[in-house]
Amino acid sequence: MDIKALVSQLTLEEKAGLCSGDDFWHTKAVERLGIPRVMVSDGPHGLRKQDEEADHLGINDSIKAVCFPTACATAASFDPELIRAMGEAIGDSCQHEKLSVVLGPAVNIKRSPLCGRNFEYFSEDPYLAGRLAAAMIQGVQSRNVGTSIKHFALNSQEHRRMSSSSDADERTIREIYFPAFEMAVREAQPWTVMCSYNRINGVYASEDPWLLTDVLRKEWGFEGFVMSDWGAVSDRVAGVAAGLDLEMPASGGVNDRKIIDAVRAGKLDEKLVDLACERILNIVYRYLENAKPGTPWDKDAQHAQAAEMAAECMVLLKNGDALLPLNKEDEIAFIGEFAEKPRFQGGGSSHINAFKITGALEAAKGLKITYARGYSVEKDEASEADIAEAVAAAKKARAAVVFAGLPGSYESEAYDRSHMRMPACQNKLIEAVAEANPNTVVVLHNGAPVEMPWIGKVKAVLEAYLGGQAVGEAAVRVLFGDVNPCGHLPETFPLKLEDNPSYLFYGGEGNTSEYREGIFVGYRYYDKKNMDVLFPFGHGLSYTTFEYSGLKLSAETLKDTETLTVSVTVKNTGNRAGKAVVQLYVGDRESTPIRPVRELKGFAKTMLQPGESREVTFTLDKRSFAYWNREIHDWHVETGVFTIEAGASSRDLPLKAEVTVESTAELPRHYTMDSIFMDIMADPKAAPVMREFMRRNKGIFGHQEQENGSDAAKEAITADMKTAMINYMPLRGAFSFGNASAELAEELLKKLNG
Amino acid sequence: MDIKALVSQLTLEEKAGLCSGDDFWHTKAVERLGIPRVMVSDGPHGLRKQDEEADHLGINDSIKAVCFPTACATAASFDPELIRAMGEAIGDSCQHEKLSVVLGPAVNIKRSPLCGRNFEYFSEDPYLAGRLAAAMIQGVQSRNVGTSIKHFALNSQEHRRMSSSSDADERTIREIYFPAFEMAVREAQPWTVMCSYNRINGVYASEDPWLLTDVLRKEWGFEGFVMSDWGAVSDRVAGVAAGLDLEMPASGGVNDRKIIDAVRAGKLDEKLVDLACERILNIVYRYLENAKPGTPWDKDAQHAQAAEMAAECMVLLKNGDALLPLNKEDEIAFIGEFAEKPRFQGGGSSHINAFKITGALEAAKGLKITYARGYSVEKDEASEADIAEAVAAAKKARAAVVFAGLPGSYESEAYDRSHMRMPACQNKLIEAVAEANPNTVVVLHNGAPVEMPWIGKVKAVLEAYLGGQAVGEAAVRVLFGDVNPCGHLPETFPLKLEDNPSYLFYGGEGNTSEYREGIFVGYRYYDKKNMDVLFPFGHGLSYTTFEYSGLKLSAETLKDTETLTVSVTVKNTGNRAGKAVVQLYVGDRESTPIRPVRELKGFAKTMLQPGESREVTFTLDKRSFAYWNREIHDWHVETGVFTIEAGASSRDLPLKAEVTVESTAELPRHYTMDSIFMDIMADPKAAPVMREFMRRNKGIFGHQEQENGSDAAKEAITADMKTAMINYMPLRGAFSFGNASAELAEELLKKLNG
Repeated sequence: MDIKALVSQLTLEEKAGLCSGDDFWHTKAVERLGIPRVMVSDGPHGLRKQDEEADHLGINDSIKAVCFPTACATAASFDPELIRAMGEAIGDSCQHEKLSVVLGPAVNIKRSPLCGRNFEYFSEDPYLAGRLAAAMIQGVQSRNVGTSIKHFALNSQEHRRMSSSSDADERTIREIYFPAFEMAVREAQPWTVMCSYNRINGVYASEDPWLLTDVLRKEWGFEGFVMSDWGAVSDRVAGVAAGLDLEMPASGGVNDRKIIDAVRAGKLDEKLVDLACERILNIVYRYLENAKPGTPWDKDAQHAQAAEMAAECMVLLKNGDALLPLNKEDEIAFIGEFAEKPRFQGGGSSHINAFKITGALEAAKGLKITYARGYSVEKDEASEADIAEAVAAAKKARAAVVFAGLPGSYESEAYDRSHMRMPACQNKLIEAVAEANPNTVVVLHNGAPVEMPWIGKVKAVLEAYLGGQAVGEAAVRVLFGDVNPCGHLPETFPLKLEDNPSYLFYGGEGNTSEYREGIFVGYRYYDKKNMDVLFPFGHGLSYTTFEYSGLKLSAETLKDTETLTVSVTVKNTGNRAGKAVVQLYVGDRESTPIRPVRELKGFAKTMLQPGESREVTFTLDKRSFAYWNREIHDWHVETGVFTIEAGASSRDLPLKAEVTVESTAELPRHYTMDSIFMDIMADPKAAPVMREFMRRNKGIFGHQEQENGSDAAKEAITADMKTAMINYMPLRGAFSFGNASAELAEELLKKLNG
Repeated sequence: MDIKALVSQLTLEEKAGLCSGDDFWHTKAVERLGIPRVMVSDGPHGLRKQDEEADHLGINDSIKAVCFPTACATAASFDPELIRAMGEAIGDSCQHEKLSVVLGPAVNIKRSPLCGRNFEYFSEDPYLAGRLAAAMIQGVQSRNVGTSIKHFALNSQEHRRMSSSSDADERTIREIYFPAFEMAVREAQPWTVMCSYNRINGVYASEDPWLLTDVLRKEWGFEGFVMSDWGAVSDRVAGVAAGLDLEMPASGGVNDRKIIDAVRAGKLDEKLVDLACERILNIVYRYLENAKPGTPWDKDAQHAQAAEMAAECMVLLKNGDALLPLNKEDEIAFIGEFAEKPRFQGGGSSHINAFKITGALEAAKGLKITYARGYSVEKDEASEADIAEAVAAAKKARAAVVFAGLPGSYESEAYDRSHMRMPACQNKLIEAVAEANPNTVVVLHNGAPVEMPWIGKVKAVLEAYLGGQAVGEAAVRVLFGDVNPCGHLPETFPLKLEDNPSYLFYGGEGNTSEYREGIFVGYRYYDKKNMDVLFPFGHGLSYTTFEYSGLKLSAETLKDTETLTVSVTVKNTGNRAGKAVVQLYVGDRESTPIRPVRELKGFAKTMLQPGESREVTFTLDKRSFAYWNREIHDWHVETGVFTIEAGASSRDLPLKAEVTVESTAELPRHYTMDSIFMDIMADPKAAPVMREFMRRNKGIFGHQEQENGSDAAKEAITADMKTAMINYMPLRGAFSFGNASAELAEELLKKLNG
């Protein structure tokens, strides 16, 4: 299809019309020219396709579908291939259901455990989120169905989400909040990007030309179209100019009219409207021309896939006395309503109408299980009878497994949590069960970290996150050792909410939310502040043990234009097959910019038989060492020594090496009379000029070499102090004290800047 | 003297000349008109008057003088009267020495324990700093000698102090960094203000019209003149226009020329030069006309005063088993070179050439003291022999007192510390001594908090700060019970440096220092983050005990224009006379702006005999409840419930009450289509308008009341979610979904804003 030619045949009215949805879930058709409408579907861990004409809020029934593990869980797999396979399955389902685009993945950074939508997001780390998002996009799009990476950008809270401005500095945006989008765009070219509701430094994402055009398209090379989050448009004309192609859902014609009027009034270039239509139709026809409506959708097979995935995502947080895996011959108590009715997804646009749900109790049929409900999710309470029954069951059993976590009302799209606690009734239950049976295991169902006041009293904790409709099967497989757990935390679990870096300012005041912690999000903060945490980023145990050794770098020194190959050997030193997640962190040992201690720059998951070892290789490039420099508005590597650390979590890094990276870029320097000596003398170009000038003009600078008389004076102004005074002295100071002429000053500046 | 008339007789050249110093320590004379030059002297805890013609750096000998306790110590007294008396003594000395102005007090906020100049500053709390500064100014100025409150403003680091920009938001500046200056200006009208070296949000303090004119003069009513810190001037002409009257020291005529040229070129209004001269000469003549050159300066009497003060300032941090006071009959080991040569002041402009220094060893003459040097300050090391000798002395003694702390090189004007540790040799010594004798006491000499890795091993810790030349006498009096310690910490001692709120960004990057922790400085941070600290703000033990009771408020509800009287009864429940420091904190229980848990709003020191009790009364006014509102750029009290807490430290507050304060101010509201429902419905004026509009236009808003069909849909979009969606929905959203007309929208906005 020649899209440009097609667009040229459209009237202005038709073009304006194409720039918004036909209804909640469809693009507009232009019947005159045979342009059909196409449908999109909520995602990202399955399909939420509306079953009929949507009402105003789009909350009618969706079709029965498969709920895969949510992003909080899949991120814990640290396994792009697993996520790619999920994408392929979802892509097939879309083809079956005639859906052109699935709305996901969602890659917003987990700035706070409180964000209501954390369960839909991958990580507190942008590199991990970016790698996984790219895999998901590649998976879906391999089926000729589009994705919509969202929510672009800085949409890390639900509180006042349609009006709040996420105010962050340029470096923070570039280093923390953009890279997941950037990696996905550069590596996987999503068909569409969904802009977020919020404003960024005061400007709505839906009308921000810097965001949607300068960065997304010009810098990163995005080729698809940008759609708005549902209802995210404030000024539609500004949006068209900024690069927002498709407004979703419909504006009832109001905004079509505004676009038309703006073009007629000469306030909006019609070419920009053409461009939006071209981008939209490019995707519409890419889908249509590759549509495979007969694609089968084997839901049972996908359920099995969801179960396998969920098991790969579970994180064994604690396993005292190697209590897990449990023995299938033993009598085990399953306690907690989640064993029967697991919580496996969150509320909101991502909510799947799961065709089948397997609870752990059902999955454990045939084993020697006693069940006690323990608490009521509906009432969010544990009655005395509930607890008594649970305690009795625990007492009789070899081990007690409490299925606990957050009820759906605790975390959901549209609002944030106000605390990080589990329901009091569940905490009480866990304490009572742990009291009754020393072999107590807690299986957690939650979309984000919780406080664990009982952590010292239970022997094992298995984090299942929101593991999708087959979570119960997966839990049973892991608990009883059919699967060796291999998930690792994609986020830090702090000891308490107040420990979180965003705690003081999260949510903001009125419609302003200041990201004051800057780049210090997640482990970047806890490590820099040298804080204890409940469980660190990257943490995850196994039923076997791994040993890390043989850290090798391909060079001791490299230029920032070169790459470094890093290899690490990991060995399974236990007696069970298992998957290790080798994590690679880079840190700038000393730096002018304020930087984190370490940042994740590589990871690899690898299956190892008992005794087997494997060398894993990583490639580090400029970005692995760079920070965003606000002066040059670009990535920059400061020449110096970097630490390379490898191991099993951000706080279990037995391997460490150093490498020197040399910058090939020269930062611009401009000296004035306010420039200080220290900065001039640190500049290899300016320092010799300065030294020569000082030599020739001893009258000005000579006083700095004067010796002082008495001991008292020496005590008052010590040598250290003099050094500091000279270091921090602006040129004007030296000139002022030295009574030098303005001409001489100008001469010096000319030379320094020349 | 008719200053206006005098200025009118000056030539432009003479006037420009008067706007800078004659040399390092004098204003300029105009002999033609009989205007003499006057001298100023460094302070603020004594005189650092230069003895002869100053050289370029002004570092020659100063006269022998009395070194009172430094500000870090005097702040711990929580006693404005004590500081007022010191001011009076310093004022007398100035009259004796023909000094017109003493350069102090210094009231910069202790943002970080690392600031090299912390020892010269009062507190992390602006209210405490302001109260004490006002007392000091009143004391000095009661002698018709001027003060120069400094360094105005946001000069909380020495790192790059002449070029760094302290970047803070308006509210932080108003609530944390300004109030000490504001209180001092409003209550004590210092003759002069010294502007700081640094820039504030990019603008040099020395040329910031908002700082020096709008805020300082127009808002606070400052009547004196502003001088620059020595060498703080970058653009002199901009400085004159901004309100910087006197540049110090001399610019060698360069800047006089620039002022003249600017006036001649019409770029600077000559009236502004006149104004600067008037302000300077007003003060010069105020001094001259009240000069009392014959005022006696009894240094021995002032030494005695300094000793009494130092004892009042010492903070008993820990006193296990009531080890202190020591018994004068017992054999005691004094260990550590500071017992012989105490560190009692810091380096830099405040460094006094003390006429007499009393070490603890000397002061303890006649008692049964064994002395061991323990470590060498000069070499910053403890030799094996040193430690062996100390251990031997400790073993023989009933108790061992280690005089420890920071050598002068660790903290000084001009540079910041890079860590918060004591010398390793001293820590090692303390551990060894504590091992040898369970009754080990540490007396600390330091200008700012240190980490105490040995805190659990020693029985008692007495914080002497930098206590002035008589610190040794004071320490002995406190140690042996002649004085009951009554100091309280004017700052938090964190467990480790990384705990400090400014840790991540302190010092800044290049010439930008971001105050990202905002208002959460000191205990405001530790309390909000619910963190453990080594010793909390306001902490201080006594040899007796106090009981707090009877918290009474004069009203349950008041308007923000009214005052509240709060009374507290404090009783000495021990068997020794002692002074209690009753502290009063106010907190906003729930607030729209992000606020600290509590803030100090009153304190009172009171002497009580054993068994005696006294009712102490405080008055709280609007400012006690207010926060700085960025919308109206003014103080604002949000209507609501406030907590009033009273007790012995910020974390020992046995008394608590609540009061409701009602705002009399109405915040401006302006609604647009981007305004959200929650905000409209929370506005008592707008809510009824909105409700009426909704009633009349059910077609637009009616859908919000629709019920959904299936259970699956209800799970996806729960009631909580719907509430949140409606709360956060912008008007445009409702209008868009409801297909309402632009005219209707305009009608609504008109009514809402009308």
